[in-house]
Amino acid sequence: MDLEAILDGVFGDVSDHIGEGKVADYIPALAKIDPRKFGMAVATVDGGIVTLGDAGEPFSIQSVSKVFTLTLALGRVGEGLWKRVGREPSGTPFNSIVQLEHEHGIPRNPFINAGAIVVADTLLSGHEPRETLGEVLSFMRHIAGDETIVIDREVARSEQQTGFRNAALANYMFAFSNIHNPVEKTLGVYFHQCALSMSCVQLARAGLFLANRGRLASGHSVVSAERARRINALMLTCGHYDASGDFAFRVGLPGKSGVGGGILCIAPGKAAIAVWSPGLNANGNSAAGTRAMESFARRSGWSIFG
Amino acid sequence: MDLEAILDGVFGDVSDHIGEGKVADYIPALAKIDPRKFGMAVATVDGGIVTLGDAGEPFSIQSVSKVFTLTLALGRVGEGLWKRVGREPSGTPFNSIVQLEHEHGIPRNPFINAGAIVVADTLLSGHEPRETLGEVLSFMRHIAGDETIVIDREVARSEQQTGFRNAALANYMFAFSNIHNPVEKTLGVYFHQCALSMSCVQLARAGLFLANRGRLASGHSVVSAERARRINALMLTCGHYDASGDFAFRVGLPGKSGVGGGILCIAPGKAAIAVWSPGLNANGNSAAGTRAMESFARRSGWSIFG
Amino acid sequence: MDLEAILDGVFGDVSDHIGEGKVADYIPALAKIDPRKFGMAVATVDGGIVTLGDAGEPFSIQSVSKVFTLTLALGRVGEGLWKRVGREPSGTPFNSIVQLEHEHGIPRNPFINAGAIVVADTLLSGHEPRETLGEVLSFMRHIAGDETIVIDREVARSEQQTGFRNAALANYMFAFSNIHNPVEKTLGVYFHQCALSMSCVQLARAGLFLANRGRLASGHSVVSAERARRINALMLTCGHYDASGDFAFRVGLPGKSGVGGGILCIAPGKAAIAVWSPGLNANGNSAAGTRAMESFARRSGWSIFG
Amino acid sequence: MDLEAILDGVFGDVSDHIGEGKVADYIPALAKIDPRKFGMAVATVDGGIVTLGDAGEPFSIQSVSKVFTLTLALGRVGEGLWKRVGREPSGTPFNSIVQLEHEHGIPRNPFINAGAIVVADTLLSGHEPRETLGEVLSFMRHIAGDETIVIDREVARSEQQTGFRNAALANYMFAFSNIHNPVEKTLGVYFHQCALSMSCVQLARAGLFLANRGRLASGHSVVSAERARRINALMLTCGHYDASGDFAFRVGLPGKSGVGGGILCIAPGKAAIAVWSPGLNANGNSAAGTRAMESFARRSGWSIFG
Repeated sequence: MDLEAILDGVFGDVSDHIGEGKVADYIPALAKIDPRKFGMAVATVDGGIVTLGDAGEPFSIQSVSKVFTLTLALGRVGEGLWKRVGREPSGTPFNSIVQLEHEHGIPRNPFINAGAIVVADTLLSGHEPRETLGEVLSFMRHIAGDETIVIDREVARSEQQTGFRNAALANYMFAFSNIHNPVEKTLGVYFHQCALSMSCVQLARAGLFLANRGRLASGHSVVSAERARRINALMLTCGHYDASGDFAFRVGLPGKSGVGGGILCIAPGKAAIAVWSPGLNANGNSAAGTRAMESFARRSGWSIFG
Repeated sequence: MDLEAILDGVFGDVSDHIGEGKVADYIPALAKIDPRKFGMAVATVDGGIVTLGDAGEPFSIQSVSKVFTLTLALGRVGEGLWKRVGREPSGTPFNSIVQLEHEHGIPRNPFINAGAIVVADTLLSGHEPRETLGEVLSFMRHIAGDETIVIDREVARSEQQTGFRNAALANYMFAFSNIHNPVEKTLGVYFHQCALSMSCVQLARAGLFLANRGRLASGHSVVSAERARRINALMLTCGHYDASGDFAFRVGLPGKSGVGGGILCIAPGKAAIAVWSPGLNANGNSAAGTRAMESFARRSGWSIFG
Repeated sequence: MDLEAILDGVFGDVSDHIGEGKVADYIPALAKIDPRKFGMAVATVDGGIVTLGDAGEPFSIQSVSKVFTLTLALGRVGEGLWKRVGREPSGTPFNSIVQLEHEHGIPRNPFINAGAIVVADTLLSGHEPRETLGEVLSFMRHIAGDETIVIDREVARSEQQTGFRNAALANYMFAFSNIHNPVEKTLGVYFHQCALSMSCVQLARAGLFLANRGRLASGHSVVSAERARRINALMLTCGHYDASGDFAFRVGLPGKSGVGGGILCIAPGKAAIAVWSPGLNANGNSAAGTRAMESFARRSGWSIFG
Repeated sequence: MDLEAILDGVFGDVSDHIGEGKVADYIPALAKIDPRKFGMAVATVDGGIVTLGDAGEPFSIQSVSKVFTLTLALGRVGEGLWKRVGREPSGTPFNSIVQLEHEHGIPRNPFINAGAIVVADTLLSGHEPRETLGEVLSFMRHIAGDETIVIDREVARSEQQTGFRNAALANYMFAFSNIHNPVEKTLGVYFHQCALSMSCVQLARAGLFLANRGRLASGHSVVSAERARRINALMLTCGHYDASGDFAFRVGLPGKSGVGGGILCIAPGKAAIAVWSPGLNANGNSAAGTRAMESFARRSGWSIFG
């Protein structure tokens, strides 16, 4: 398959739409990003990488980080994690608190904010945020094969200052005993993981193990094949908040989006694909990025649905 | 792949669990089914069929019918259908009315009851229920390649007499102008489609086009490859009500369950699998059937997630 | 107290606002009412009556009827009624179905539509709608001391044809076994009670027993003093749907409004006050009528709150 | 009216029920209260006071304080307060956050926790919590005519340590810009106002202005007669969370309860009545206290509903 030609085609399909949508403005550090940025990278299971546009430029991966902290947490606490967080689509926006009240402080899945905060809490488990974040960063560098990945402290600080809905979620779950560490520490981990700064190339490489039955391109095992499958299933059903069904319908690949404009998709057995374009659509997902993934899926024929 | 051996293995895995769960008792005609029935059939894209247990015995397919009426409705009204019904998981039980009030009479997806009632309404579109049901039946016989398929009138009559929550949903949507025919007629179509009586063999054959890029084993086209993919995506995200995420996590195949104890799963490019066991788990899905599908997916390695 | 002077003052306060708001248009028979109608009547416990404007002209009392059917139902089934309907403000619009799902088919109070439908169902209790409506009509004529009161069949028929949300509510509660008669019969009673046609004079006289410790001006007892107090309490907390708090805050008298533009208020120990003006405010209550009651309460000093 | 005889009668009615219910245990300082405490005091508009049992013993008034901070806030910011908090019953428990999400951070009324936190925020308005609490305390001492009233610092500290649902509410409203001061400061005021320690005698005297058209027994004006009426109306419709309708139905007087077991009721034109008994019923209101108020209202005939 000529991936370079496919990416050229994708670019033709989306070029008129680059710059569409609204850049997330609730964090000063995100608001100043040039809305016309667009990058894409495909990391294949044979170790290859194909890129397009600003694929080498780091951006704030935000909620895409939830895939990786979930992976770490499952390694740490195993399937027991599911006592503290569900596995169902939420039918509500990413920061909704309604569902938590109806279900006694158990978030619906690990990819809405409340669920990811619980995941961060399991990673912390009595340690200092600094230590936990060190582990997260090591893990990201390891699976991406790139020691230059960093956490953007300015972004993390901005989030900490404006993250009052997340603080509400964390306090609320603490009241239900579903946060075990001090709220500020758990939120500290969460805000910093969201501030991971990675390029499309780094992100695609980091996600490749999910396309490769749990293994890096080097063959090194990150998780079991079964766990990789299950994480993919969660990305498919819950990865785009209350637009998850639509993304599955239109793109047909497991994916996770972030408010920084990044999306990571998994084509099992074939590749991990990362796209970045900062303008967001009405659902809070990258507008041009979603279009690009739709075009890519159609041109590659890599839908998991046939 | 030795499907017979796989089915033998599946039977070994589930035989201790056959009879578990609770048979649906809200309809007399369903309540009297022997809870120890268990059948399974795999129809492969090369036209083969492998069976297990009571695979030849007809049962009430109930909500599994929603896959087929959706297929028919998309053929009739095209993508315009999505103005009247959404494509997102609901996060609520199959017969919830809460979501309808919050979203002005637009059901979240075509596989919850409200959504399937809208789909039935588009099929009716001014005709008499008898004519529409004739079309549905012809379609089922055509795609299953079996002229003996029937609608069980006793079951349909029972549903009509006890379906007050469905009557509430239909009246409610009529008030929002999202039901266009008289409520009784639309419900008449809906109750009768649910009363389709099919065996696992018939059901697997009827679903095969979804695994075969829209084509019957004969090569005859039912829908485009793209539409088949999209219907599979909806089955994956919405096919098991508020246990859809869990089914995707555990089984990893698009599936649709019915309260009669049947489940239809699609393994794209490979096969359609039907299972039947009347005892239901807490989510209203076949208990032994869900186990069997989980075992089958593991043994065959046919997960769509890698 | 010079009630005539007070009513003159009220008229001065509201005359610029008569015709404001939107006449209910979901029923043809209501939509054609002249929006500039305005009438008011005060029936005092000493048997006197003071009137203003179109106080003698009959209008459709709609939900104001819920006060009287509740009175009848309490006489029939006593405090056992409260097993089937609650006594709390709903916090939701008059025709909301959300609360019913969360509380298993038990309406929050007898003055929202669902609650009034349950009340109608207790009145029916196995009889024919015709008989029950005969009783309702006799009761209204008795307490108003006026044999000319009628039910407007054209209005009733319109409601029956357009009342799909009410049909949804009734079917829904039937599914929870909280409607005991056939849905169509219970709705028949409900739609006809809402179509009672009464003038402000008739309505004020009919409500007087609630101001007079359960007795008519003649001294004849309708209910006990305690029951009259309790019905007044329900009118205060639940009589204006999700604007009940605001009405209590601004007017300070128990009141019940109807979509026909009528409001009945009770000044305990003093009088019953009826007002009518068809234009409705955003909450679905008479716009000029609410203003008139606010002016009347201020001018008379009859607030129950001091 | 022989109030002493009435209180004796009340005691006879409730003595078998003293000790019933469950003492609030989420704060250590409250959990250790003797559940058999019972006190009652009636302060009449002529300046008299009648007492029963432990009427002189201070207890934690908790949410009863919301009546007084509301009074202060209305004095400070006037009717503009209603842009930030509603006047409708909530239909949900005292600490629910669901309603806030549906209504964009505007609490339904000033007597649920979220609403009282907004009220505390308006009192703070840029000052230090210490200053604001000084004002609150001065106000309480002034209206109760008793300089010995204090805030129990141990209770306040306990609340601060365990008040995670309140922290969730405050952070959530901050995210909607409906909290203007730092969350910790606003919560500091809120937790300390709840820790006001007062006896039934002090509480009844402090509430008397609401029964006396806004004036103290001395004749000194606290608020206008209209404002007193309006606060009474809010107590009636919203003072007992989602049991407000039931309290109005059974007691028929405006009232506000606290989780410390206190209830303050207002009989307009007659008296303020305070009762205290620590055991709470299922709705979180004093069990014996609610019974006592019901008995008192029946024996005195002081219902506002006739």
